[in-house]
Amino acid sequence: MTVSERTARVRLSAAMEPGQPVLLDEVERTSALEVTDRLLDGDPLLDPDGRRRRRLLAVDGAQVIAQAERAGVRFVVPTDEEWPRVLDDLGGVTHQDHGGRPVGLWVRSEASMASLGPRLHRSVSVVGSRAATVYGTSVATDWSADLAERDVLVVSGAAYGIDAAAHRGALAVAQPTVAVLAGGVDQPYPRGNAALIGRIAAEGWLLSEVAPGSGVNRGRFLRRNRLIAALGAATLVVEAGARSGALSTARWALHLLRPLAAVPGPVTSAMSVGTHELVREHAAVLVSRPTEVLELVGDWGTEAALPPERPTVRTDGLPETTMTVYEALPARGTVTVADLMVQTGLSVAATLTALDDLAARGLATGAGEIWRRMSRRVDP
Amino acid sequence: MTVSERTARVRLSAAMEPGQPVLLDEVERTSALEVTDRLLDGDPLLDPDGRRRRRLLAVDGAQVIAQAERAGVRFVVPTDEEWPRVLDDLGGVTHQDHGGRPVGLWVRSEASMASLGPRLHRSVSVVGSRAATVYGTSVATDWSADLAERDVLVVSGAAYGIDAAAHRGALAVAQPTVAVLAGGVDQPYPRGNAALIGRIAAEGWLLSEVAPGSGVNRGRFLRRNRLIAALGAATLVVEAGARSGALSTARWALHLLRPLAAVPGPVTSAMSVGTHELVREHAAVLVSRPTEVLELVGDWGTEAALPPERPTVRTDGLPETTMTVYEALPARGTVTVADLMVQTGLSVAATLTALDDLAARGLATGAGEIWRRMSRRVDP
Repeated sequence: MTVSERTARVRLSAAMEPGQPVLLDEVERTSALEVTDRLLDGDPLLDPDGRRRRRLLAVDGAQVIAQAERAGVRFVVPTDEEWPRVLDDLGGVTHQDHGGRPVGLWVRSEASMASLGPRLHRSVSVVGSRAATVYGTSVATDWSADLAERDVLVVSGAAYGIDAAAHRGALAVAQPTVAVLAGGVDQPYPRGNAALIGRIAAEGWLLSEVAPGSGVNRGRFLRRNRLIAALGAATLVVEAGARSGALSTARWALHLLRPLAAVPGPVTSAMSVGTHELVREHAAVLVSRPTEVLELVGDWGTEAALPPERPTVRTDGLPETTMTVYEALPARGTVTVADLMVQTGLSVAATLTALDDLAARGLATGAGEIWRRMSRRVDP
Repeated sequence: MTVSERTARVRLSAAMEPGQPVLLDEVERTSALEVTDRLLDGDPLLDPDGRRRRRLLAVDGAQVIAQAERAGVRFVVPTDEEWPRVLDDLGGVTHQDHGGRPVGLWVRSEASMASLGPRLHRSVSVVGSRAATVYGTSVATDWSADLAERDVLVVSGAAYGIDAAAHRGALAVAQPTVAVLAGGVDQPYPRGNAALIGRIAAEGWLLSEVAPGSGVNRGRFLRRNRLIAALGAATLVVEAGARSGALSTARWALHLLRPLAAVPGPVTSAMSVGTHELVREHAAVLVSRPTEVLELVGDWGTEAALPPERPTVRTDGLPETTMTVYEALPARGTVTVADLMVQTGLSVAATLTALDDLAARGLATGAGEIWRRMSRRVDP
């Protein structure tokens, strides 16, 4: 990519709101240089009311680059070796009036960008409400730690609640994590997560499609969500209220044909209304263990989750006659051998043999004629 | 039905374990009278080892009937007007070595049996673990009360935990409920629920396919579960561990092509492992509100559950330019009109008009050049 094309992309990322399909499609079809030229020339097709031209004029590309360099921030474009190829799936895809592949990515990281790409084939975007419950944040942290230990890269948005819990889980097991910010990567937002965001930059990758110095606004949060969905090989919604922004990430995952998973919770929790709705309408698969998430992003066939283990009981595999007598023993109180014979219809010999078998297994206890059941549960 | 055929069914219900397909199919094909005759004659096809004959010989039919009458217990057979027709679905259906329509039903109730049948077209079987959590029993009680108030008949098995909570919910709103027991209807089991079981008999219906005087055993619990599944127009599993007996009721509901619903819970709860597994494998639909259960048993088209209400926010329906400016207002702190113009690209007139609009709606507040966002949440 020429220097002028790269600079045009820097200007666009600083001057325009992200995720605008009309502009991004035109960049893909022609070039960022041509699009900036046409905006400056006042092309009414790309800029009906002149707003984009005014914003572009207000941006000093050289200043943006200088500011980025001072903050240790790199700019990566789609022709670069380090470009995460999974973001190409966003090209030409529009959903609810936004979409498109970013013109470039701003990266703040002490790690190599080239090492990020391969890891995104085994990644999961963990998203959820900012007003998460203790239950939700525990699940987000525990599962993210578990998945990170299994070499799954955890991607999220560095917000309060589920996002922060997910990042913390990965960092807790000394694994890198990816945060995609709605504002510039040099502007930690929310401020309360500044220390966490700094640690993500030090140990993982901090990404944004808006230029350093840019603040956040609602549109940028929504448009940022499509990047989170695209960077995860699957998306996991841990908790989401009925209007949670996490649901927009979930819709984007579906739109990109990425697997979507949701964690259930108490039906009494407002923070699980969104996840239950996703499962109920079959948009998301219900997951109740990290291995069920791994199944969605891991190697096909070798990492399929086994069904939950069923506790064994001591009557498992009992011979038929022995089981018949065991079942005839009352749950409480005692019974006579004579009564057992009437109830089972077995001969006296068969009944006594079965009782001996049960006694040997610790499932019944008796003295002469009087017998009593013992628990079949296995001691923990 | 002749007196001798009815008496033969009484003897069979007292002498044989319930839900044995070979015997029940033969009763359907011929008659209970013929089956008892053949058992007494030592027919090796129906009774390979003579156990059934010995048990039949030990039963005094007249004594069983006398005992039932003393306890105020009636015997209802399939040709009776009061027979619950929904149980006919069990005829010829086998699942895991048991099945078949019962030879008759023992009923303890102060209510008319004829009034039960019509109500079973709008009924739900509420089942779950005995070792239920506070969460599970709360949901079972609250939802059963809610459904009973909407004229849905609650069916369960009078066990500890979810069963008892379901019955209590219906009784709490002065509605009848049905309990199907694994032992005789004159033998309250578990004993700790004796008062509850007595109240169910007084205000609803206590049913069993085994004769009065019969105790419980494991096989009877499992075979009883098929009746619970058949009596509910849908089955709801509230909580179930990985090996819960409630899962056998769930499988029977599926086998009878009845709708199956499951309540999610915390993934950290062992008591929700079974319900999550049912949802995950698409055996059950996830339900998070009683109206979603009603949808499965209520009048088609008029009682469909609406999606959960989404809270409205004050920016809903905002004109586009106003929304653009609102989104450009920082989440915290202030901004100048000049900065807003740069960020939105709007003219000064459009920016000020939008700010006035926002101020009028209580979404922004400003003094001259300096503006600040206000919350868009609706006060509860």
